[in-house]
Amino acid sequence: MNREDQEFWGEVCQDLIEESQRAISPLIGSQKSGEIVKMGADGTPTTLIDMVAENKVMEVLEGVDRPLTLISEEIGEVTIGEGPSDAILVVDPLDGTSNAVKNIPAYGISVAVAPISPGKKGSLTIQDIQMGVVKNYATEDIYSAVKGQGAFVNGNDLTPSLKQDLAHISLGAYVYRMDMGKIEILCKSVRRMRILGAVAIELSYVADGTYDAFVDVKNNLRLVDVAAAKLILEESGGIVTDSNGKSLNGRLSVLEKTSLIATCNEVIHKKIMDILEGI
Amino acid sequence: MNREDQEFWGEVCQDLIEESQRAISPLIGSQKSGEIVKMGADGTPTTLIDMVAENKVMEVLEGVDRPLTLISEEIGEVTIGEGPSDAILVVDPLDGTSNAVKNIPAYGISVAVAPISPGKKGSLTIQDIQMGVVKNYATEDIYSAVKGQGAFVNGNDLTPSLKQDLAHISLGAYVYRMDMGKIEILCKSVRRMRILGAVAIELSYVADGTYDAFVDVKNNLRLVDVAAAKLILEESGGIVTDSNGKSLNGRLSVLEKTSLIATCNEVIHKKIMDILEGI
Repeated sequence: MNREDQEFWGEVCQDLIEESQRAISPLIGSQKSGEIVKMGADGTPTTLIDMVAENKVMEVLEGVDRPLTLISEEIGEVTIGEGPSDAILVVDPLDGTSNAVKNIPAYGISVAVAPISPGKKGSLTIQDIQMGVVKNYATEDIYSAVKGQGAFVNGNDLTPSLKQDLAHISLGAYVYRMDMGKIEILCKSVRRMRILGAVAIELSYVADGTYDAFVDVKNNLRLVDVAAAKLILEESGGIVTDSNGKSLNGRLSVLEKTSLIATCNEVIHKKIMDILEGI
Repeated sequence: MNREDQEFWGEVCQDLIEESQRAISPLIGSQKSGEIVKMGADGTPTTLIDMVAENKVMEVLEGVDRPLTLISEEIGEVTIGEGPSDAILVVDPLDGTSNAVKNIPAYGISVAVAPISPGKKGSLTIQDIQMGVVKNYATEDIYSAVKGQGAFVNGNDLTPSLKQDLAHISLGAYVYRMDMGKIEILCKSVRRMRILGAVAIELSYVADGTYDAFVDVKNNLRLVDVAAAKLILEESGGIVTDSNGKSLNGRLSVLEKTSLIATCNEVIHKKIMDILEGI
C-alpha cells in the first residue's frame, strides 16, 4: 500500500471507528438495542444496534472524497461515490452484537481495506486486504496492521504467545450448535477455554497473547468478519488457516463462509491440526 | 440477619472490595501478575495477583472490630480477633484470576457472610450464608443480596430472564478438560454459549439476565467460590442446584467441591436437567 493511500484510508478507518462508537454507545446494554428490525443481506436478522452501527458507517463513507465499495454484513455490497472504486472497505460495523446488547465487555468494529489497482479485473479476495483495524469498544483497545509493516495495539507492537505445549494454552473456540467431533479432544487438551462471541476481537487476542489460539471448525464464519483481524494476526507473526490447514483465499463477499484455525505460532498450529486430522 | 449485623458486615464487605480492587489494579494485564508464587490451601497454584488480593483481604479483616473466621482459597481457614467468631467470611479474593492476568474484562471479588449464632455447634454449610457481594472489577458492577431481602446490582433490583425455550438461551458453561457427555447435547440446543472463566460473575450474569443459565457438571468447582453468587442468584428469583438437581448444602471449606446447574427459572432448569439425565 503506498504512503498516500495508507494515510488516506487510515484516516477513513479512524473516522469510521470514532463515529460508529459514538452512535452505538447510548444503546449498549439496553433491551431495545437487541430488537430485530430487518433481515441482513446474508439472511441473518439485523438488530437495532446493528442497524444504527451500519447506518453510521454508510454516513461516514458517503462523506469520503474518493469512490469506494463497501462490503458489510447487513447491506451486502454497495458502491459509494462517482466512477470506479479506489478501494473495497470490508466492515463489520458491530462485532459481538449480542455482547453489546447484554453489556458483556467484548464488542467492537472491524474495518479492512483492499485498494483496487487501476485496470484490476475480477473480484478481490481476502488476500488483497492491505489494512486492517479492529477496536474493542468496551476496552478502548485498537488493533491495527498494514501489510508488510507489522501489527500494533494502541501503537505498541503486537506479539503472539511463544507457548508450544497445548496443555498450557488458552483457546478461544466455537463449540455450540454443532457436533463436537474431534474438537472435543482439543478442548480436553488445553489449559483453559474462553468463548467471548466476538471473532475479530478474539483473533486480535491471539495477536496480543491474550489467547494462544482460536478455532472455529463449523465452516459458518463470515469471511468478511475476519478480514481485518486475519491481517492483524498474520502481521503480528501468528498463523491463520482454514480447518484444512490452507490459507484463506475466499472472495470478499458477505456470502463467503470459512472455518478458522488461528494460532500464536507454527508449533501450536501443527499440534491442533494433528488433533483435528486424527493423527 | 439482624439489622445491626447487616450494617456491620455490609460495611466490612464494602471495605474489602474497595481495598482489594485498589491493591490489584496496578497488576492487571501485567506478566508478573500471573507468576506462581506458592501453592494454595486447596492444592492449586497461587499467582502473584492472587496473593496480593488475599493479603489485602487479610489486612482489612485484621482491622475489623469483631472476631471472625476467614475461609479463602489460598489460606484455607483462619480465625481473626479474640474469642469465638461472630461470623464466617467466605472470600474469593480474585474470581477470574487468569482474566485479570490477561486483561480480559471479567474478574472481581466474591464475599459471603454466614453469621454464627451464640452456642452454634458443628460446621456451617453454604445454606448458612446470609449476605453475598460480588463485584466485577472490570465493569465496576456490584451484585449484592441479603437473605430474604432480594438481590441488587448497583442498588437496582436484579431480575433473571423470563425465557422458557432452550433454543433461545445464552448459556455459560464449563466444557473443557473433561468428557463432554450429555452436555454436548445441551451445547447443541442453545442459542449461544459463553465461557468467561469467572464463576461468581457468570452466576451474577444469570441473576441480571445477561445469561439465561450457567452449567458446570465437572464437579470440581470450589463451593466457597460460589457461596456469594448462589445467594445473589436465588434472591433474584433464579434457581441453583447441583447436577443431580439437589440444593447445594456442602460445608464451608476450601476443599468442598460441587457441580452447578444455575438457571433463570424453573422451566429452563427442568429442560436442562432433562437433557443431562437423558430424558
